[in-house]
Amino acid sequence: MAYHRLPEPQIRTFCESVMQKHGFNDKQSRDITDVILTADLQGLESHGVQRLIRYHNGMKSGTIKADVQPEVIHETPLSVALDAHSCMGHIASVEAMERAIEKAKAHGFGVATVKNSNHFGVGGYYAMMAVREGMMGMCFTNTEAISVPTFGKKAMLGTNPIAFAMPADPVPMLYDVATTVVPRGKLEVYAKQGKPMPLGWAVDENGNDTDDAARVIANIKNKAGGGILPLGGSSPGSGSHKGYGLELIVEILSSILAGGNTSNHVASNGLGDTSQSFFAIDLKMFGDPDDMRARLSTLMQELRDSDKADGRDRIYTPGEMEVYSREDKLKNGIPVNDSTLAELRGIAEELGMDFDAMVEVLD
Amino acid sequence: MAYHRLPEPQIRTFCESVMQKHGFNDKQSRDITDVILTADLQGLESHGVQRLIRYHNGMKSGTIKADVQPEVIHETPLSVALDAHSCMGHIASVEAMERAIEKAKAHGFGVATVKNSNHFGVGGYYAMMAVREGMMGMCFTNTEAISVPTFGKKAMLGTNPIAFAMPADPVPMLYDVATTVVPRGKLEVYAKQGKPMPLGWAVDENGNDTDDAARVIANIKNKAGGGILPLGGSSPGSGSHKGYGLELIVEILSSILAGGNTSNHVASNGLGDTSQSFFAIDLKMFGDPDDMRARLSTLMQELRDSDKADGRDRIYTPGEMEVYSREDKLKNGIPVNDSTLAELRGIAEELGMDFDAMVEVLD
Repeated sequence: MAYHRLPEPQIRTFCESVMQKHGFNDKQSRDITDVILTADLQGLESHGVQRLIRYHNGMKSGTIKADVQPEVIHETPLSVALDAHSCMGHIASVEAMERAIEKAKAHGFGVATVKNSNHFGVGGYYAMMAVREGMMGMCFTNTEAISVPTFGKKAMLGTNPIAFAMPADPVPMLYDVATTVVPRGKLEVYAKQGKPMPLGWAVDENGNDTDDAARVIANIKNKAGGGILPLGGSSPGSGSHKGYGLELIVEILSSILAGGNTSNHVASNGLGDTSQSFFAIDLKMFGDPDDMRARLSTLMQELRDSDKADGRDRIYTPGEMEVYSREDKLKNGIPVNDSTLAELRGIAEELGMDFDAMVEVLD
Repeated sequence: MAYHRLPEPQIRTFCESVMQKHGFNDKQSRDITDVILTADLQGLESHGVQRLIRYHNGMKSGTIKADVQPEVIHETPLSVALDAHSCMGHIASVEAMERAIEKAKAHGFGVATVKNSNHFGVGGYYAMMAVREGMMGMCFTNTEAISVPTFGKKAMLGTNPIAFAMPADPVPMLYDVATTVVPRGKLEVYAKQGKPMPLGWAVDENGNDTDDAARVIANIKNKAGGGILPLGGSSPGSGSHKGYGLELIVEILSSILAGGNTSNHVASNGLGDTSQSFFAIDLKMFGDPDDMRARLSTLMQELRDSDKADGRDRIYTPGEMEVYSREDKLKNGIPVNDSTLAELRGIAEELGMDFDAMVEVLD
């Protein structure tokens, strides 16, 4: 499938306009777009504008509601719990992290939970909101169940990602990964190409390791059993119980704290009902923030400079590649494939916008 | 190597007496012993009484100091930073978690960091201190560097375990794992038996995957390069970058926050200088704690009841096996091998105690 590049300022304006057409105000439209484009800029295409069609369709069908506001349902000096009422996940998440940061500024620590939310895009975005305030940031979300517990054959937990960010120079520490060994998208690539996928990624409907990606994808769609494995694969010898436990930690830090549905019951009512939590931690609680920043910067430089394995010429620190990706894409445009480009044009047409007048397709 | 069982109350009294002989007061002796025996009771032999000889020798040589107290070097309403001054890690850790819990009781959240500490035993012990107060507990420690970053061949980060615990019935959720794919002890077992270990556990001095455990152990001892792999193995395809990043998160949550040496510089001065952090989080910050406890209990029962893979008859939840192990060992005694038994007798002799008068060896 061919790729095309779209100038970042133009696709940004287009996305903001789409959100305004759906009824979001200026700040909301800017926030949603900034989360979406951050994914593209960081090289996480799956969470970028290629997902705009899903949000657009979700708003059309009512699973994502544009005309509701997150509601505070519980609050303490350090914490706030929001009910998103099935609003756009990005809106609830930006508000939640803003509230957590505000509390952390006042007291050192702030946390916000959200229930009845929708897909919130790239979690690292919210963790980095705290970093821009000089703080440590974390966020967690559950998802629809797709991962099997160790020794199981039924998907019970989500991809349940962890996002963690901390100030450092010249690049921050930014960790944003699913606690499954791979995301669903990786299986889809192997399924499309008809290639056997590596063992240790997923199990079939009997709970056996399989290299048949198409079969796993079909099973997931049909809820026929099987699913993706936790980080660590299928055997405790390779650490499967460690990944399974991490998935459960994220489940606790999202649905259990927020009062929402656990992954194995998410979407059972046809509405978005994922849960999230957002942590902001002021480094002044621990001593001198500049000292922590300097020592982490030193450690990450030592990691990048440390001896390379045979055949390798670089060691990256978490979040480093994302910085290079952003520089490249701001300069050269955001890559989208034929299918995404067609979807963007379709959205524009439905909303009475002229895509090609707004966005130049570079190649 | 043959195993013997020691009655729990007797080995407990013995350990407490050993600590008293080293100059610890009654509470300190009880606390240290309780951490050590919790490891044995939960089936984590490596962190139990088999390690008493290392603590004993550490106190004799002065790397672990019995006559110092942790000192508060920074404090806010929600946080406290301690300098352990190379005291017994267990002492500093119990005090740190007690202080974190006290702050969480007053404000909802409490965190304590510790620097210049020593091996603190089984991290789950401290996380469970919070659970006994109805709270969520977490702790993190760095260690001497033993793990290579993705694409590296030099050990730069520690086994850097994560401990996380949360109230639930009939068994709590207790997660306590190294962020390396396996602990060093697993390699030692393969090295002793002369068996090839699974690929994906460790790399040799050139950064290549190896099944030669003895070579890796020797390389680690001689600082000749290579080491244990992060959870996820050696390739990003199996999630190596996810484990490497988790190791770095734990490094941030221990040495960077505490102001201590990072794993790649730990023990460079011949003293214990690991760093730790301890988090206590009051569930009332998020809503009704009984509701959270009930919903997590339901989810964990659903996990245990979910469909089993071919050839498997049980799915465990994190911390469940440890509960069964404790019941078994309280009833039938704590297993120690010949070598540990000889060490315990040697410690007793050095300290002028009569081991066999204090502890009955059951078989």
